Amino acid sequence: MNVNENTHPLPAEVHRAIVEEVSAAAVGLNRYPDREFTELRERLAAYLGHGLDADNVWAANGSNEVLQQILQAFGGPGRTVMGFPPTYSMYPLLASGTDTTYLAGVRSADYGLSAIDAAAQVREAAPNIVILCSPNNPTGTALGLDVVEAVYEAGKASNAIVIVDEAYAEFAHTGTLSALSLLPGRERLIVSRTMSKAFALAGARLGYLAAAPEVADAIRLVRLPYHLSAVTQATANAALKHADILLANVEAIKVQRDRIVNELTRMGLHPASSDSNFVFFGGVKDTKAIWNGLLEAGVIIRDVGIPGHLRVTAGTEDETTAFLVRLEELLDQGPHTLSS
Amino acid sequence: MNVNENTHPLPAEVHRAIVEEVSAAAVGLNRYPDREFTELRERLAAYLGHGLDADNVWAANGSNEVLQQILQAFGGPGRTVMGFPPTYSMYPLLASGTDTTYLAGVRSADYGLSAIDAAAQVREAAPNIVILCSPNNPTGTALGLDVVEAVYEAGKASNAIVIVDEAYAEFAHTGTLSALSLLPGRERLIVSRTMSKAFALAGARLGYLAAAPEVADAIRLVRLPYHLSAVTQATANAALKHADILLANVEAIKVQRDRIVNELTRMGLHPASSDSNFVFFGGVKDTKAIWNGLLEAGVIIRDVGIPGHLRVTAGTEDETTAFLVRLEELLDQGPHTLSS
Repeated sequence: MNVNENTHPLPAEVHRAIVEEVSAAAVGLNRYPDREFTELRERLAAYLGHGLDADNVWAANGSNEVLQQILQAFGGPGRTVMGFPPTYSMYPLLASGTDTTYLAGVRSADYGLSAIDAAAQVREAAPNIVILCSPNNPTGTALGLDVVEAVYEAGKASNAIVIVDEAYAEFAHTGTLSALSLLPGRERLIVSRTMSKAFALAGARLGYLAAAPEVADAIRLVRLPYHLSAVTQATANAALKHADILLANVEAIKVQRDRIVNELTRMGLHPASSDSNFVFFGGVKDTKAIWNGLLEAGVIIRDVGIPGHLRVTAGTEDETTAFLVRLEELLDQGPHTLSS
Repeated sequence: MNVNENTHPLPAEVHRAIVEEVSAAAVGLNRYPDREFTELRERLAAYLGHGLDADNVWAANGSNEVLQQILQAFGGPGRTVMGFPPTYSMYPLLASGTDTTYLAGVRSADYGLSAIDAAAQVREAAPNIVILCSPNNPTGTALGLDVVEAVYEAGKASNAIVIVDEAYAEFAHTGTLSALSLLPGRERLIVSRTMSKAFALAGARLGYLAAAPEVADAIRLVRLPYHLSAVTQATANAALKHADILLANVEAIKVQRDRIVNELTRMGLHPASSDSNFVFFGGVKDTKAIWNGLLEAGVIIRDVGIPGHLRVTAGTEDETTAFLVRLEELLDQGPHTLSS
């Protein structure tokens, strides 16, 4: 429960569909794959809705590669990318790997980010690229679209590309709006997604984005030819054909996520509001003791390096129960683990 | 016959093995893949022989990504990579994509490269990285190991990393030595390979390299986490288990390759000596007319942009026959296609 995987194994029907689709693709493995992965882009666009079509979609081997390609296309030496830590730990590494300067914005004390504050920081820093993570990792909370709109407006002065990383979007509370709804008329807005979480395909490495067709064209200039293998395309296509089954598991995970938030609150801890498949919680006096105590019971969660805080992925009902039971035991054991 | 694919479809036994291995891997697709792809590195090392083990091996999504990762690790702004055109057209693009300056060395009039000449150019340019392609693309000819040795020695003054791109090594004439034999004691030598050609897996995107363990460690710092999917690992592992069957097709392709060289010579054209699965040939007066004439017969070959020259991939016996018959018809049709 430490890397925000979807702990539900692939449903048998989806497994069967993937094997069949890969089997068909494997007949032609001696040939290079479709470098435009047209069927996959069509299926991803249809899944996203919002009037998007294949021209609006791009994909790569995991959302890390999608973000790397965006930085290769729009970042580079002498250019800057701004993020708002604590956020996804790969952003500064991707910046460094593409020789783009990373600018760390500031959040409020409770790790929130308001539209006015974010826009002021973007106006001041005038970055070439801004990355907003929503729901944010590791805090789990979704941004209001007002934040995205304000950052996009503030970024106009520096012609900033604004990326909204929605890796966990499918886990958001009902009624949470996706930045996909903001794409019309905003040609420098990019919404990135992944099949690793909601689609339970972390092992297949398929990240994607939706944006204006010109963004995909810019990335075509930097991507390596044939970057998406035929087996990857087949696997993703098969899973997309069965999106309904996979998204049913998302609902089950959201139930466990809400259960974790409620139970941690009852235990006196301070979980952040979560729109993702994980819960970030504070009020832990000795994070090391809690982390080690959980490990002894076979439960691995994530110490994200923020004092007093830990992050746990919502698992199946049984996994979640194991975590909660053990955590409460540890909290009951003594003052060294009690919240202050 | 234009992109040097292996035109032999996957043998049924290998297809079955790939589907079985992917089916087993797909059960755990909800989890991130083995980021160290240990089994795959072990199998690749065992295939390469030369006393190599898993620590000497690295892999990525196609040899383009392998080369990109090497440039990310050892190139970058203010650094240089030297190649010797005409050679693989991706080298300058990979240099540009990693903000590494590309230095174009010079070959002799017949596109050869001698040890003395190459070493002198490397000594003069003092690049950070040198890429030697052997067998070279598009000319098809393998370099003698004396060239690699001399370039490595000459590169010592600038601590140069020397890459020998052996994408087509398995097609070399019997007795041609691989630069793998030069690895011991040369910690800045890298030999890159691919499963796209000899293993008939262009669609699976699996490139790899052999080098000192320290080289793989340096690349670990720049690769994206989990860059190789579980389905890619499974596909490659299954193919490696059946290397003997796949390499039998390599022998069949070499027969057709030698047949093309002999027939083109008989037709008065000037094919280069080929250690690859393609033949580069000169003496074509009107390359456009020949290229178009072949296309009309459903045969696509490659105009690599070198006046008077074309490149053709050796296919199955039937495909090769179709190419040779049509080519001879075109040559017989008139002086516009005759060699000067």
